[in-house]
Formats: sequence, C-alpha cells, structure tokens
Amino acid sequence: MPSIYLAGPEVFLQDAMAVMREKRRLARSFGFEPTGPGSDENQGPVVGLNATAIYARNEDAMRRAEFCLANITPFRGISADPGTVYEIGFMIALGRTVWAYTNHPDDYGVRVRSIWYAGLEIDEGSGRRRGPDGLAIENHGKADNLMIDAGIEAQCGRVLRAPVLPADPDRDLTTYREALQALTEICSN
Amino acid sequence: MPSIYLAGPEVFLQDAMAVMREKRRLARSFGFEPTGPGSDENQGPVVGLNATAIYARNEDAMRRAEFCLANITPFRGISADPGTVYEIGFMIALGRTVWAYTNHPDDYGVRVRSIWYAGLEIDEGSGRRRGPDGLAIENHGKADNLMIDAGIEAQCGRVLRAPVLPADPDRDLTTYREALQALTEICSN
Repeated sequence: MPSIYLAGPEVFLQDAMAVMREKRRLARSFGFEPTGPGSDENQGPVVGLNATAIYARNEDAMRRAEFCLANITPFRGISADPGTVYEIGFMIALGRTVWAYTNHPDDYGVRVRSIWYAGLEIDEGSGRRRGPDGLAIENHGKADNLMIDAGIEAQCGRVLRAPVLPADPDRDLTTYREALQALTEICSN
Repeated sequence: MPSIYLAGPEVFLQDAMAVMREKRRLARSFGFEPTGPGSDENQGPVVGLNATAIYARNEDAMRRAEFCLANITPFRGISADPGTVYEIGFMIALGRTVWAYTNHPDDYGVRVRSIWYAGLEIDEGSGRRRGPDGLAIENHGKADNLMIDAGIEAQCGRVLRAPVLPADPDRDLTTYREALQALTEICSN
C-alpha cells in the first residue's frame, strides 16, 4: 500500500484521537497506509515529547511517505495551520505527490476581506486591492496564499474545496474522502 | 557572494519596493547576494504575473539560493505569513541553511492566549492547556508552530526574536540585521 502523510491540525482537537482514527480508517479503505502528525498508532503518544522529538518524528514520516494529503481548512485565523503549510512545502521539495483539501469554500482573498477586514473599508482604487492598513490582498482565486496552491498545482496536485462551509469545519470529512477517492484514480493510472 | 533567499511578507506592504530595497542593500552589505519574492531587480515587476508564474519564479530562486533568511513576524494573525512558511519547509527539505527572525518577542503559545483568545477563559486543568473551543495551545516555548522553529533548529539554524515589539513590526529591520550579522559568522567558519 502506498503511504500517505495526513498533514493537518487535527492533533489540536479535544477529540484528536477519534478524528485521526477515522481519517486513518478512511485512508486505509482507499488503499493507503496513513502516517503523519500524531497518527501512528505504533509510535506511542505525542504528549510528553518535546518539540525536537515531535519534529524529528514528523520529518521521518514525511521522508518515508509517497503521498501527502493536507488539510488546509483555516485554523485560528484566515489561513491553514502553519505546521501543515511547512509540511506541504517540505514534501513538495522532496518530490512527493502533495494534494490538499479545505472545508472552507472561499478564496483566500475573500476570507481576507470578509473575516480579517470584516466591516472595514477596502481600497479598490489603486490597481491593487488593499486593506485599511495598506496591505495588499491576494486576488489569485486560490484557497490560500498562492505559494501553497500553486506549489501543489505545479506538481500536478489538486486542492479540493468543500462547496459550502460544513457545520463542523474542523471535523467534517466529506471533502477529505473525495480527495482520497480522486487520489486513488491517479494511483491506478 | 553566497545567495540568500529573503522570505517574508514585505511584498504585501504599500511601500514594498522601498522596504525590500533596504533589505537587499543590508544583505549585500553583509556579503550576501539577495533573492526572493519580488526582490530581484533584474526580473521586472511581479504585478501582472499570475500565481503559476510567481510560484515558478520563487521556486527557481529558492533552488538557486544557498541560504534562506525568513521573516516570520506574525502576518494578519498570530502566525507567520503562510507563503513564508511554505518556503521555509521547502528550503529545509532542499538541504539549504534556513534561519528566521521575528519582530514579535513572545512565544507562539503566549500569542494564542493573549491575542487569539484575548479575554476568553483558558482551560489549564486538563493536562494540556486548551482554548474555550477545545483546541490545544502549543506550549513549547517557540516563536511559532513547532514545525517551523524545530525544523530550523534541526539543521542548526537559528530563530532570532526582537527583545521587545518594535514600533513598526512590519518594517523594523533591527533583528533582520542581527540575523545577517550572525549568519556571516557561520559563513566564515
């Protein structure tokens, strides 16, 4: 079975173990052997390890995996969990097949305007759209910062988005399952 | 001169060109040839390029650079700019020497509590500190998500932090300059 690194912020959830167990179960049901942050049953719990040890475990898992499927649903803000973003960049540089999914349907630029600058005036007039603090707002139609989406697309990966925001974006696995299904199709080609 | 990729969100600033020009000037004054997002004078402006072209330009610059110095000062939230985080992961996987600096003095976990959960109750009692939404709060004493700091440290890089938040965290170059100085010392060893 090809191994797949399940990047994502689920490790922070109160019910992390249950959610990650279900993600692993689904990955196996599509023919992948799952690995990733906090998700290797055989390795013992992450709690109690220091940052160096957690990093070393994750880096080792990334180097061993053939695929990465990253959950880039916004985490504590308007963008993906930064640990997940690090892993996407790392695995693309390693030449692995990296895909992502998000439970937020909107473009990153839409979230910047509607969430970060909610209710504030946007400067539309100067050629490049900017917030009231002068910071340019990305307008590339991507799910997150263009480096993430375009990095994935540059190696023929895909970023799948939920069509509408689900009731529980931190735990909904509908788009995750669709991504696994689509990945099995490239694996069998 | 060793080349250095200057990762960071300066490209979004209203005065991006002036700030990046000064960063390049400082890099050269310490003996580095700067490259990075929007910072190659010879390449023409980024404005007008699509995401694919910008990504390709940045990836090419990352592959050519020997060093990376990343500005991980929080950007539109409590963490570093996601494009910058991608580049840190990418260049570490390439085996480059990656350092970072931030103009925010606090630990990531402190920012999560004081900014993201400002005024809200933190659950301290259950072994792992959690926000009122149940999400665990990292407590590793790092500047950002542990993957960033520990990834940099795993290859003997350093994350430099400003001792206090400067008046203009988006533009202050004091800690950037210190990082360049410290980098020259490893270069001459």
